[in-house]
This record gives sequence, structure tokens and C-alpha cells, in this order.
Amino acid sequence: MFSTELLDKAARALAAARAAGVRIATAETCTAGLVSGCITAVSGASQTFERGFVLYHDSAKATGLGVPEEISRAHGAVSAEVTQGLAEGALAHSSAGVAVAVTGYAGPGGGSAKNPVGTCYIAAARPGMPTLVERHVFAGDRDGVRLAAVGAALDLIVKRLA
Amino acid sequence: MFSTELLDKAARALAAARAAGVRIATAETCTAGLVSGCITAVSGASQTFERGFVLYHDSAKATGLGVPEEISRAHGAVSAEVTQGLAEGALAHSSAGVAVAVTGYAGPGGGSAKNPVGTCYIAAARPGMPTLVERHVFAGDRDGVRLAAVGAALDLIVKRLA
Repeated sequence: MFSTELLDKAARALAAARAAGVRIATAETCTAGLVSGCITAVSGASQTFERGFVLYHDSAKATGLGVPEEISRAHGAVSAEVTQGLAEGALAHSSAGVAVAVTGYAGPGGGSAKNPVGTCYIAAARPGMPTLVERHVFAGDRDGVRLAAVGAALDLIVKRLA
Repeated sequence: MFSTELLDKAARALAAARAAGVRIATAETCTAGLVSGCITAVSGASQTFERGFVLYHDSAKATGLGVPEEISRAHGAVSAEVTQGLAEGALAHSSAGVAVAVTGYAGPGGGSAKNPVGTCYIAAARPGMPTLVERHVFAGDRDGVRLAAVGAALDLIVKRLA
């Protein structure tokens, strides 16, 4: 169900985490479990992938993983600040040594002037290191945007572990 | 990325939850986010799908959603008892009015004499009602077992809401 390209990225993220001796956690809004679903499509992931948090409804985003509501109000639920907070929150709510978070507008509705449909923020956090945050604007339909975000999240895990 | 059949099941689960005036939560081990990923492939799910918990590593299963470790030790992580506990735990850890949980052995490794590879337990919980639990043994490879479990989980949401 996932492309060979995505499965290769998942295998690289797992290998990087194994080499670093850490486990992976995820926090997802628009991809809603597809990052964790893709990582675990690789057999043997259970030694390295620990857990995932899917925050979808506004009530979940507001109360999940301890991102202060003021940050969400000030910057929007789809923002570098909230995504960084979710990645660091996933670290704090797990025993993982690296966590990746994704927020975005997969479409067809949603988006804003500043962040049109296709915009996704990806953040990767490790304890004691600066959290990496990227902004992407992906083309494509809902599926296409979500799968592109999965690929970017897997890549950012590898970058943060390098 | 999900078949039309699965997307139809997801749309039916969302429609049933909307009709009942409740939100949906998920707790997944072997499907690891594919149930939440499939539900949210349907545009407009954000009003009805609330949040999901992916518990993959043993440390996550032991500490996630409050299922007592004795239950896991006595019955195994892939069991009716643990799956029921996860569904009820997802209700307790959310504002959702219906929660579905999946545990299983997707293969190629794992499984036991009692629960061979392909065995999945699905549970659906609603406050004040008995939790429904089903056991399935699905044929197919890792992808096939996981996607069959997604379908069974979506169907059980509809059954518990009927």
C-alpha cells in the first residue's frame, strides 16, 4: 500500500534510529497515522518504533501532548511553533530518543493565505539538541499531499539523527 | 492508497458516528495508525474523528491507556482482554463516544499456537454499553492482514453504533 520509495525511507529511518540506539515516536495531525503506519510496514519495526499520537479534532490538538493553547492561538494549528511543540511533546510523553511531528492542510478544504492547501510543517526533536523544523508546500490531491508529508517526515528523522 | 471498499467503510463509520452525535477514537498495535489514516482519508473527517493512539513497542503497550500489565501477562498482548482494555482506555483518554482497538500478528514473524500469524482482535467500546470484541484470522501477507484488520475495525465501529 506504500510505495517502494516510502518503504525505503522508512527502512532508512529505522536503521538510523537503531544505529543511534534510540526509539522513534510520532505526532501527527494531517497525516493521521500514515507516518506510523508506513514505518511499521517494515517488518521488525517493533524493536525501534515505540508509539504514535494522532491528534485530529480541535479538542485533541488543544489538549494533546501539552502544547499550550496560546501557541496554537497565536500561530495557528498549522505552524512551525505548534509542530515543534508536538515533536517535543511526543518526546516528553514517551521513552523515545527521537520524535517527528507533522501538521498541515491536506485539502481539499482548509488552508489560509499564508499557508495554502498543501502546506505541511515537519519537526524532528531529540533530547538536548535543537528541534529541526521544515515547511513544505506539496502539490497534489489529499492523498498526494499526505504521502509527500510522510516522506518528508521520514527524511527529517534521518537528518535529526545524523 | 486505500481501496474504494475501505474508503466506503470509513465513510460509513463516520456517518454512523455523526448520526449518533459522537466522535471516534482509535487504539492500534499491529495496524499502527492505518485505521486512523483510513478514516481521515475521507475529507471532512475532522469534525468526527478525534484522536488515535498507536502503541507498538512493548514499553508502549505496557504503559499505554492504562491496561493493567497483569492482563497483558495473563492473556498476552494479542488477546480479547487486552484489546477490550485498549478500546475502553481510548474512551477514557479522550472525549470520544466510540472507540475501536486492534491488536494482532501481521507477520511474517510472531504468532503463537493459539494465535497464529494473521490473528487479529478488534474491540469497539461505547460508554455504558458492553464492549464488542471479535477475533479474526486473516490470510495474506503483512499488508494484507493489516488492511483486512482496518476493514474489520471500521465495520465494528458501525456495529457498536447501531
